[in-house]
Amino acid sequence: MSIITIVGAGMMGSAMSYPACDNGHQVRLVGTHLDEEIIDHVKDNGIHPKLQRKLPECIKPYHIAELEEALKGADLVIGGVSSFGVDWFAEKVLPLIPDTLPVLSVTKGLLDQPDGQLLTFPEAMRRKLGGSCSLSLNAIGGPCTSYELADRRHTSVVFCGDNPEILRKLKSMLETSYYHISLSTDVMGVECAVALKNAYALVVSLAVGLVEAQDGIGCTQAYNPQAALFGQSLREMKRIIKMAGAKEDNLVYGAGDLYVTIFGGRTRKLGTLLGRGLRFDCAMAELEGITLESVVITTRIARALRKRAQDRSISLSDFPLLMHIDDVINNNMPVAIPWKSIEFEDI
Amino acid sequence: MSIITIVGAGMMGSAMSYPACDNGHQVRLVGTHLDEEIIDHVKDNGIHPKLQRKLPECIKPYHIAELEEALKGADLVIGGVSSFGVDWFAEKVLPLIPDTLPVLSVTKGLLDQPDGQLLTFPEAMRRKLGGSCSLSLNAIGGPCTSYELADRRHTSVVFCGDNPEILRKLKSMLETSYYHISLSTDVMGVECAVALKNAYALVVSLAVGLVEAQDGIGCTQAYNPQAALFGQSLREMKRIIKMAGAKEDNLVYGAGDLYVTIFGGRTRKLGTLLGRGLRFDCAMAELEGITLESVVITTRIARALRKRAQDRSISLSDFPLLMHIDDVINNNMPVAIPWKSIEFEDI
Repeated sequence: MSIITIVGAGMMGSAMSYPACDNGHQVRLVGTHLDEEIIDHVKDNGIHPKLQRKLPECIKPYHIAELEEALKGADLVIGGVSSFGVDWFAEKVLPLIPDTLPVLSVTKGLLDQPDGQLLTFPEAMRRKLGGSCSLSLNAIGGPCTSYELADRRHTSVVFCGDNPEILRKLKSMLETSYYHISLSTDVMGVECAVALKNAYALVVSLAVGLVEAQDGIGCTQAYNPQAALFGQSLREMKRIIKMAGAKEDNLVYGAGDLYVTIFGGRTRKLGTLLGRGLRFDCAMAELEGITLESVVITTRIARALRKRAQDRSISLSDFPLLMHIDDVINNNMPVAIPWKSIEFEDI
Repeated sequence: MSIITIVGAGMMGSAMSYPACDNGHQVRLVGTHLDEEIIDHVKDNGIHPKLQRKLPECIKPYHIAELEEALKGADLVIGGVSSFGVDWFAEKVLPLIPDTLPVLSVTKGLLDQPDGQLLTFPEAMRRKLGGSCSLSLNAIGGPCTSYELADRRHTSVVFCGDNPEILRKLKSMLETSYYHISLSTDVMGVECAVALKNAYALVVSLAVGLVEAQDGIGCTQAYNPQAALFGQSLREMKRIIKMAGAKEDNLVYGAGDLYVTIFGGRTRKLGTLLGRGLRFDCAMAELEGITLESVVITTRIARALRKRAQDRSISLSDFPLLMHIDDVINNNMPVAIPWKSIEFEDI
């Protein structure tokens, strides 16, 4: 039995308490300053108000003020913040963590550099900590919604990091009969694949709205247009993984993740609204202006691709869907799927 | 304007009349001996009883007895039979077609050879016709349901064949604002990808039934387990395409096709019943014993893989989902997803 401290009491961070507790660990769930209310609820009755489920008995909730206490004697820290909390996590939490204590992060995303290179969050955090940091920063990729993990549905994820021995240890600490863990040292490949799925889930969801615009909201679903965009999305995702110098095979984690992301949540909602004909600013107003990870990642990747196209190391015409959704988001353009540009001749 | 003769008046064959008519062609729709009733209906009121839609005005329906008349002066023959009709099509229809008249087939499927090699339908038909045959046999792959094609939904398909010029001509005859056509001379890659999707749609659908068995039929859908099987399905499909000596990139046509096939039809129904716990014989009884393409293709591919494993050119452990669904189908085994065998170490 070990002590696992989860920092970030949002949906996914909190859901990690299920496989952790089912392995017999003591779990300390620490809310960020944005999670004060959640932690109050959990302290009060054990129920997570957003997950709308009782958290496992073994967890002990902590407010952010109690962070240092929650880290004492821990064997593993799980980073449970969203991509918007990564800087905070790197600046406020990581410096408190000794080099011997591994970190496993649920955060999905990528950063782009001025030269068009992509940067994974583990690498970005390492750079923030300075060159001398020898902290083991690992991440979780693959298709996993927090509700379903909390319901102990069969879920296949991948843990990625630099050190095979640490990855194996993390797996042994968290695998259960329902939480299935692959391991990979191709951090860029995995992180790229699973970050991209947010951008492309937005793209595929456009097809839902396009059909609704034709037939009315709530009409029969049409899958041919979604499948057309799904196939092309995989093509573009694979090219971006290749551009990043990572293993194209790890596309499968992003493909599964894309599959699961299309079926619900705010990214699908936004894609559907855009597909129905709303301009981006109006669609965001309907979503009450909440910034979505899909919007951020799309913008970053498009910026990186444009930079690389200037250097002529890639051609933007290989990424018609990403460049289009970027236009829709950042230039308030109407949706007009570039169907002709996703027809290919391989003859 | 050309004359296009569609042989086979099932759902997909008949749906091809929409892009054909929208291109201004004369379309002759010839029912097989199994389609007599359909053709009677179409002759009577223009409505296709299975598609439940009025066929375009430009089509002229023919009974099989009128086949030779329907082929007179044709510029293109579309083969609209299912995989169960391929032998009939090769024996009864192809011999009537002059070498100058190209054939484009909607049929998806593969055959396996005694040595474990896979054979596409175009190649199988060519062999049946004898070595001297110089007929141009082309095929359509990619995600396309007949209902949605008839509703003129955006649809991306790929035409494959040996001759680039003929492929381009076929595209120019059939492309519309909604029917988007890529071209490929990698017949094996395309055919392999789109045939495999039937087997793997069965696999992914197991997850639907597994969740229903736990929570009750009609419960909330759970996508984590589906996504886990979806990702692994792509992995196995890619390996089979590689084994067949074809281009792995053409997996995307199968991926889109898998996506669309999971959402409906008898294969999903069968997978769901099996996932709920029914043995194959009981599930088939519930489906009134109709032979499904997914069952046939699974059996053929598994047989080919076993043969190749005997030769040690592949390892069966690389195909855990296909071998499991084959056991479920052909050995009446209960469903027990081999979750541990789809965890990987790439470190």
